[in-house]
Amino acid sequence: MPKQVDHEQRRRDVAAVAADLVAAHGRRALTVRNVADAAGYSTTVVSHYFDDLADLLHETYRLAVSRARRRVEAVLSEDPGDLRGLIEAVLPLDAEREADWRIWLSFWSEALSSPAFADEQRSRTRSTTERIALCLRHLADQGRLDAGVDVERTADRLSAMIPGIASEAIFDPQKWSTELQRRVVDDELAALGIAVSGSRR
Amino acid sequence: MPKQVDHEQRRRDVAAVAADLVAAHGRRALTVRNVADAAGYSTTVVSHYFDDLADLLHETYRLAVSRARRRVEAVLSEDPGDLRGLIEAVLPLDAEREADWRIWLSFWSEALSSPAFADEQRSRTRSTTERIALCLRHLADQGRLDAGVDVERTADRLSAMIPGIASEAIFDPQKWSTELQRRVVDDELAALGIAVSGSRR
Repeated sequence: MPKQVDHEQRRRDVAAVAADLVAAHGRRALTVRNVADAAGYSTTVVSHYFDDLADLLHETYRLAVSRARRRVEAVLSEDPGDLRGLIEAVLPLDAEREADWRIWLSFWSEALSSPAFADEQRSRTRSTTERIALCLRHLADQGRLDAGVDVERTADRLSAMIPGIASEAIFDPQKWSTELQRRVVDDELAALGIAVSGSRR
Repeated sequence: MPKQVDHEQRRRDVAAVAADLVAAHGRRALTVRNVADAAGYSTTVVSHYFDDLADLLHETYRLAVSRARRRVEAVLSEDPGDLRGLIEAVLPLDAEREADWRIWLSFWSEALSSPAFADEQRSRTRSTTERIALCLRHLADQGRLDAGVDVERTADRLSAMIPGIASEAIFDPQKWSTELQRRVVDDELAALGIAVSGSRR
């Protein structure tokens, strides 16, 4: 195996361990010592693969983003007009998606003081909005969307709903059960005159 | 002035300085040294008034919460049915509200690993939802709400929209101008059949 590939693979392996730590215990748990202990490496090895904790947190964030992308692509490859499935793929409706949100929320605090992190956050959110817009355009092309629905405006609104529901659910899981999360999405889609169909994720 | 009052007042003064620091530079800027320098006190004085950084961050969070409460109460004392004004009072539409959101988002990361912070976050959000529900009930009593609107469901949905719009606006202010934030709120209220009226905040 070429050395470069091995290096990238090792970074991803360590980031996966870091992701579990952040998801379970928050940003504070992310220390080189904790990651090394959990991964079964020495701190020297962890430090070899990451410039610093910011680099490690960044890779952890990217791991959560790529998991989310895979889920979204799985939904859209089945039905490019499955708007409900697309939204549900990025809400904290199971353990993996909840872990992703815990990582993203941990990262937000850093993004407030790091332009590089803020750029990453911005581009992730814009890409979600764009996927929602594509999905809405697909529905429009198929005549499954009311002619009066403005695609861009609606995409912005649905996109903003996602971090809203997610942050409520992460901090108040007793109230914000998966049922309540799904109901708010369904109500929102119904209010837009979008027939609720497609997959439950 | 009684000593106790002086103590509380001093805590609030220091927290106000801490709030400005967190809002401007993020959670990382919150060190006893930075707060002491910005407040013009010694680090010993700052340490005297706060048990630790968590205590200081907590007080900073409460300061942002009480500013928000004052804004909301100002809206509702003019018109208890001013739903748009209520929502706009807690969106990052000016410098103070943006600072409040930067503080809350900084605090979220801590809330992921601190049960006390998580409780505070949960109770703040539930109180916002309850205020929205009260406002909707007032509108219903006055016949200003469609009979078909379920107050609790709608309050949950509108409440979730607030952190959603706010997080988009904080990380992507170029796209999420005050105009876009207001438009999403108006679209949401219009979709609920709630006539958009009341104050612009």
